[in-house]
Amino acid sequence: MPFAFLTNTALDEAIQKYQDVLIGHGLRYRTEIIDTQNTLNRVSAHAVYARISAPHYNACGMDGIALDSKKTFGATETTPVKLGASDFLWVDTGDPLPVGCDAVVMVEDVVEADGWYLLYSAAVPWQNVRQIGEDISAGDMIIPSFTVITPASMAPMLAAGVLQVEVVKRPVIGILPTGDEMVLPTEKPREGDIIEFNSSIFSGMLTEWGCIPKVYPIVKDDLVLIQEALAVAIGECDGVIINAGSSAGRADYAKEAIQKVGEVVLHGIAIKPGKPAVLAFAMREGLPCCVPVVGVPGYPVSGIIVMDAIFKPLLEKLTYRTFGKAETIEAVVSRRLTSSLKYREFIRARLGWVGGKMVAVPLNRGAGVVSSFVKADGIIDVPQNVEGYEAGEKVTVRLTHSSEEIRRMLVISGSHDPLLDEVADIMRREYPGSMVASSHVGSMGGIMAVKRGEAHLGGVHLLDETSGVYNIPYVKKYFPEGGVVLMECVGRVQGLMVPAGNPRGIKGFRDLIGLDYVNRQKGSGTRVLCDYLSKQNGIDPSLINGYEREEFTHTAVAAAIAAGTADAGLGILAAAKIYGLDFIPIAEEEYDLLIAGDAYETEAVNRLIIIIKSEEFAQRLQRLGGYTLKNPGSVKLWN
Amino acid sequence: MPFAFLTNTALDEAIQKYQDVLIGHGLRYRTEIIDTQNTLNRVSAHAVYARISAPHYNACGMDGIALDSKKTFGATETTPVKLGASDFLWVDTGDPLPVGCDAVVMVEDVVEADGWYLLYSAAVPWQNVRQIGEDISAGDMIIPSFTVITPASMAPMLAAGVLQVEVVKRPVIGILPTGDEMVLPTEKPREGDIIEFNSSIFSGMLTEWGCIPKVYPIVKDDLVLIQEALAVAIGECDGVIINAGSSAGRADYAKEAIQKVGEVVLHGIAIKPGKPAVLAFAMREGLPCCVPVVGVPGYPVSGIIVMDAIFKPLLEKLTYRTFGKAETIEAVVSRRLTSSLKYREFIRARLGWVGGKMVAVPLNRGAGVVSSFVKADGIIDVPQNVEGYEAGEKVTVRLTHSSEEIRRMLVISGSHDPLLDEVADIMRREYPGSMVASSHVGSMGGIMAVKRGEAHLGGVHLLDETSGVYNIPYVKKYFPEGGVVLMECVGRVQGLMVPAGNPRGIKGFRDLIGLDYVNRQKGSGTRVLCDYLSKQNGIDPSLINGYEREEFTHTAVAAAIAAGTADAGLGILAAAKIYGLDFIPIAEEEYDLLIAGDAYETEAVNRLIIIIKSEEFAQRLQRLGGYTLKNPGSVKLWN
Repeated sequence: MPFAFLTNTALDEAIQKYQDVLIGHGLRYRTEIIDTQNTLNRVSAHAVYARISAPHYNACGMDGIALDSKKTFGATETTPVKLGASDFLWVDTGDPLPVGCDAVVMVEDVVEADGWYLLYSAAVPWQNVRQIGEDISAGDMIIPSFTVITPASMAPMLAAGVLQVEVVKRPVIGILPTGDEMVLPTEKPREGDIIEFNSSIFSGMLTEWGCIPKVYPIVKDDLVLIQEALAVAIGECDGVIINAGSSAGRADYAKEAIQKVGEVVLHGIAIKPGKPAVLAFAMREGLPCCVPVVGVPGYPVSGIIVMDAIFKPLLEKLTYRTFGKAETIEAVVSRRLTSSLKYREFIRARLGWVGGKMVAVPLNRGAGVVSSFVKADGIIDVPQNVEGYEAGEKVTVRLTHSSEEIRRMLVISGSHDPLLDEVADIMRREYPGSMVASSHVGSMGGIMAVKRGEAHLGGVHLLDETSGVYNIPYVKKYFPEGGVVLMECVGRVQGLMVPAGNPRGIKGFRDLIGLDYVNRQKGSGTRVLCDYLSKQNGIDPSLINGYEREEFTHTAVAAAIAAGTADAGLGILAAAKIYGLDFIPIAEEEYDLLIAGDAYETEAVNRLIIIIKSEEFAQRLQRLGGYTLKNPGSVKLWN
Repeated sequence: MPFAFLTNTALDEAIQKYQDVLIGHGLRYRTEIIDTQNTLNRVSAHAVYARISAPHYNACGMDGIALDSKKTFGATETTPVKLGASDFLWVDTGDPLPVGCDAVVMVEDVVEADGWYLLYSAAVPWQNVRQIGEDISAGDMIIPSFTVITPASMAPMLAAGVLQVEVVKRPVIGILPTGDEMVLPTEKPREGDIIEFNSSIFSGMLTEWGCIPKVYPIVKDDLVLIQEALAVAIGECDGVIINAGSSAGRADYAKEAIQKVGEVVLHGIAIKPGKPAVLAFAMREGLPCCVPVVGVPGYPVSGIIVMDAIFKPLLEKLTYRTFGKAETIEAVVSRRLTSSLKYREFIRARLGWVGGKMVAVPLNRGAGVVSSFVKADGIIDVPQNVEGYEAGEKVTVRLTHSSEEIRRMLVISGSHDPLLDEVADIMRREYPGSMVASSHVGSMGGIMAVKRGEAHLGGVHLLDETSGVYNIPYVKKYFPEGGVVLMECVGRVQGLMVPAGNPRGIKGFRDLIGLDYVNRQKGSGTRVLCDYLSKQNGIDPSLINGYEREEFTHTAVAAAIAAGTADAGLGILAAAKIYGLDFIPIAEEEYDLLIAGDAYETEAVNRLIIIIKSEEFAQRLQRLGGYTLKNPGSVKLWN
């Protein structure tokens, strides 16, 4: 079935239609009775009533004496009542109130004199007595139906003799990974293998939503096998996720297989990513309630979106939890964002509180770029009827980190260097709870990010061809009005990374002519250096194959060389070492930090400065290799 | 050791001092290596680096043909390039890029004609190829140290060949309940037994904070036994909670026992409740790091406060989680609140969004009233140097429910009737996520709560002695300016509850003379009725024993009679039935709902009206017994 047959149903409509059909086919939560001690975070299936009162007896509320209050009537400061030892009983807090007594006088108010006990004020009946049911009376409703049980609500249940509670059963959700090329997580996949990690993501999400995930073995792309596996899962679970192979064409196997054992409600939803989702259900023999079956697209980002947008609301019916609305925040979008009128689009974004405003920087939209979810702080939800946003427009972002965390995040944007990750790591170790987010957009990208107020600081290593000076001329050019600080960080050796043993015998930049090269993106400091080296060496870049092939990080360049798809690339020693490449030093450059003026005095930047001056940082640089330290943390230019 | 020896150290100072001593004695988190699939919600002990790239090979990004891009150079709309079958390979998304190819053209752009394949535009090198490391490059830092692992961060780890992760070990925290009178949860405790439920509360709290609780058997109040049990727990756990008996005097056993096996840092903290906490530690044989030992007071409310205020911050060091600040909210305190200058006080409060402002109603401060924690929506934190607040003053409340939940909570305050709990339960079943909070303050209390803007509505059944009319005269008197709606709810039979078999042979109100009575609090409709009945019957209340003994609910009165501490009390049939009491009908009264005008049109009140008109409600009333329905939900008075 080609994709043309997919519907393009709006998300809200799809959810409503799907849920209506499921409820029409008996979708229902189930319950179980468990010990009260094990009810933490479970959902009550009914109201819970107290079986006994708490206290369940009249209890003395003080250490002191218990007596019949009538014996104290008339006692005053001037005319104390005199009691004999047989007029009262000594009691401790929590003791049952003795028969014939209706009050407790605290020990401090009992004055002993000549074998008598004096009271200087009358006891009020029932004073200092915790009467039966003072806290909870038998028959009182302790919690109503469908209440999430907290530690504090377990206590009154146990105090009131409720030893077992009927709770909503955690639905078992089967996850069925399919695909010929899928392999279990491994350190040594072969070419063409795709590591099956979606079931781990989905399991985690389902666990957080109060379900019990059940992952089935990977099934090959074979209609009969998928259909059989599906039938087993439907028989064992309260809901089934079938996770297709990563290509679009294969998703249809899921649909066909579902149609053999159940019924498809909808195929194709107007969301991006996530369009080719299949919403279906199956009836289970002997049971009046249906089992929802959802075909989730294979690309992890699409899968996460479909799980969150479609499966999660469905679980409200099965778990009787209300997940509530995710926290949202208003942010200014950092750059123009286009979106199709055909789809409601979910775009991952990094957030930062920079220069007194919340800025959202859209991330790579690739459906396969799973690392974007770790980098993302939220999701921009672009409605179907919106064509996009201009830079600076306000957008609503659904948060994936707490707004508190985002507000204290130090946002670094600019040239890629592993030292930034090491700084982030040291910061988390030294200052628990501190947050650093860094994105790799090249040195010029860093300058523009600081200029546009998207980042607190950026790494830069830009050589001015005319003066031969690093960074300072650029800062002067792009910040004529000032407002930034350029801080020295490290000296760094750039060189040519080549396969181990240097099979092409490369000695310098000139030797690249005619070879396969892998370059960095325009605007990166390394690209500027590369262009400068070409000019200096009088080489026409078109003579170097792949000069236009661009990667965004040193490690990505090194990976391409290690994989044999390029003979050389310019980069840093640390990257070459990771991939076991040879390294031919070419130039030492100045890698500095450009810091927004209003960020310079903040606690986070102060911590960063302490760290780059620290022994720990120096040691980590030494381990990475290729760095020199002179005056890290000193100000080069206060513009 | 009497209480005079306790210090009164300020909370922040106590936490700081305790943590300093513990860290000085080697307090440290421990780590373990676990499979990446099991890392959900665990904390990374180190930065995690990618072991392989993702993709780990150059992967085709589209279904289509793979070729050497050079073969397509020069192709345009008018001069297509003609390819033979040997010039390219058909590929699917995810396939490895075949050797000799550097681009993929999507299938839609390949035009077949006469056995040739035409391309109408040139392929750019590396187009539609997911290059090695596009998502993650080997060596990249995926997450830094001390990061809570989410489903989305498990994915890049698995994609990058990280099969195991070193995480912070979940500390095992021993809980040692002590006390002669302590018994395991039971439905049939004997007089004087205290049900030991604190360890369930603490276990739940510790689980939520990322620990593994380990509950030990209850230990009798015996120094040697406690000391032995403590030594065992210290040997097996990373931290120990010793939970003293409920009386103050007994807490000292904990201290003495701790001193035998460890060292006390502090005893006595300037907080209320929670003052008599013991902060201590012990060294474990052969280990360089100490085990924190905290003596927690026995009253559950004190215990919860000490766990939250002192043990939780300590756990940040053991779990490397940052719990962050709890959500707080500004609220107006509904009534005068006094607090001692000697203590920082934590006062549970119910919150409600009423009449356009957030109102905090302080709850019973009793340290034993554990049900108050279920009722509480937050904790008012009264600093040590503050003597209290006047009604209407702003206070900061630390939330225990989410502010979103609180904003949609329907706040009911007034006369106690089990039907209100039934309404709340039906509402949660019919409208998932709806919240109802009701407090029992008597009919007059309900009127005042609505008047002061503390509640959306209240249950009232107030007989006007002069006119013999229910409720309307009161509403007119207390709301001369209008602004409320009085809505009919139910007719309700009041009667005398007496022990089963009516051993005193009570037939009517007159028979109460000389017997033991248990009354309701002043201002409750039942008390008004009782006072009216005394007058009508010409009885001097002082002739009825216990006329001044006050309970706050019908069930509490019934409980007192069932326990044999009173011969009779006025109340409703539902309460008598729960306790198996006989019931002598005396009067039928009108139980109505008084609704604040600006709440009347809200969704929550609309739902309430639908419910009290429903068949389900009528059935539940029938089960409770003693109610009549005429025109429930109709307006009696629109003032």
